[in-house]
Amino acid sequence: MTTNPIILDGARVADTIKEQLAQRVLRLAERQVVPCLATVLVGDDPASETYVRMKGSACKRLGMVSRRIHLDRETSTEQLLDVIRQLNEDPLVHGILLQHPVPPHIDERAAFDAISLEKDVDGVTTLGFAQTAFGFGAFPSCTPAAIMAILDAYQLPIEGKHAVVIGRSPILGKPVSLLLLNRNATVTICHSKTQELASIVRSADIVVAAVGRPRFVQGDWIKPGAVILDAGYNKGNIGDVDYDACLQRASAITPVPAGVGPVTIAMLLRHTVDAAENAASAQTIMA
Amino acid sequence: MTTNPIILDGARVADTIKEQLAQRVLRLAERQVVPCLATVLVGDDPASETYVRMKGSACKRLGMVSRRIHLDRETSTEQLLDVIRQLNEDPLVHGILLQHPVPPHIDERAAFDAISLEKDVDGVTTLGFAQTAFGFGAFPSCTPAAIMAILDAYQLPIEGKHAVVIGRSPILGKPVSLLLLNRNATVTICHSKTQELASIVRSADIVVAAVGRPRFVQGDWIKPGAVILDAGYNKGNIGDVDYDACLQRASAITPVPAGVGPVTIAMLLRHTVDAAENAASAQTIMA
Repeated sequence: MTTNPIILDGARVADTIKEQLAQRVLRLAERQVVPCLATVLVGDDPASETYVRMKGSACKRLGMVSRRIHLDRETSTEQLLDVIRQLNEDPLVHGILLQHPVPPHIDERAAFDAISLEKDVDGVTTLGFAQTAFGFGAFPSCTPAAIMAILDAYQLPIEGKHAVVIGRSPILGKPVSLLLLNRNATVTICHSKTQELASIVRSADIVVAAVGRPRFVQGDWIKPGAVILDAGYNKGNIGDVDYDACLQRASAITPVPAGVGPVTIAMLLRHTVDAAENAASAQTIMA
Repeated sequence: MTTNPIILDGARVADTIKEQLAQRVLRLAERQVVPCLATVLVGDDPASETYVRMKGSACKRLGMVSRRIHLDRETSTEQLLDVIRQLNEDPLVHGILLQHPVPPHIDERAAFDAISLEKDVDGVTTLGFAQTAFGFGAFPSCTPAAIMAILDAYQLPIEGKHAVVIGRSPILGKPVSLLLLNRNATVTICHSKTQELASIVRSADIVVAAVGRPRFVQGDWIKPGAVILDAGYNKGNIGDVDYDACLQRASAITPVPAGVGPVTIAMLLRHTVDAAENAASAQTIMA
């Protein structure tokens, strides 16, 4: 129906962001500050190990430091909280990322909330979420921030648009809904109990798929001209959207891979550089 | 269209809640604990004075204590924060209500967030909002809690229903949207920038009006059989809903007055009794 949809090139958006960050990292180096992201991995899930490695490598490529902490799968909540508290107090660490998911015996929410707000570069704390919801402070979760960055990079209008978000997780569906709302979209939040999902999606100008089910969003659910952001990342590099079918109707769409994913990592790096700059400024004031 | 809509009798729902609370207040008295709500009013807005007086009287009628603090309109943010900190530390105070709005020179958000979480019975803190959003801890804002209590008192189904919330304030539109979402409604959040509001409301099974504009929601916006909750309270006892027109189509509707309003006050009282019980239990454990 729509001809020539825009393929929202996340890899390119991420590269632009990282070029700007590289300049900021150089300026921080002049002040003898090297941004450091501490990643905490509990257990030996191979996918999580890959994610953590990717994030560490992305730091290094920008001249930042990544400190990788790998804890045994038998680690207790209390032990994990101790590790996080040490990282909170370490002035050389600017950002802390606790890789989700942790083993089921650990209280993940308690562990997330132990991360101090100024180092919560992955946007996982309860308080950070509320600040995002109210439109001030803190770092939003990285995937929601990435979705907003892609919309902005392509100057796609948000105000007054009807955004339908499929998914309601604390680090994706809920915060992206509130970010879109705060930018004056009308937002509908859908989930597994939603009835007539297809017809609701058909009314969307902006569709955010955050379900975690491969090719879940069908082509005939898409209103011609809609913008589609696929935050899914399922086994075999498959998104939550039936890309080929949705491409026929969308005015703009993110591919998987090279869509939301690379921008999510760029947001993590940006937040870490922000945190390092904030810490450096605070130190200058104190000195 | 629909015959015999249910008039959702907020006064009756509130009475039932208050009868239960009276029993709990009696049991607390046996432990020498009298629940106390501290109300803080800054300036001399007559409507605010009325609200604070109503809340204080409601406490007294239940055998609870209300401590009224009335500060001069010239009070600074720092002075207000000091008052709140003193109330936080006072073991005889179980709940703190800062009457909105405060004079414009005061940082209201800072003042709200100074209220300790366990005494935030009005549900105004940033962290309390996030806990509501994530479905744990804390006291939700009272009007959102009242809306849920009315739906539950009349056993109106929420799961799978499409709820349209008009308004997105931090203490009403946003938290009620998340409460409905956590009860498995599909939720659309509308506001002043929403386009085609009437057609969106027409798709709603549950309509929550939280706009602050008299008779804003029109009768022909209502899908026959919808449930309408009017959280508006405008000059002259007028709600946000054109009641007579909406009554023709709704299956259930709250009147104004005697709808959401009295249940909101009952929720404030319930949270204060909850807080007093929590404090009493904590003391028993420490003793």
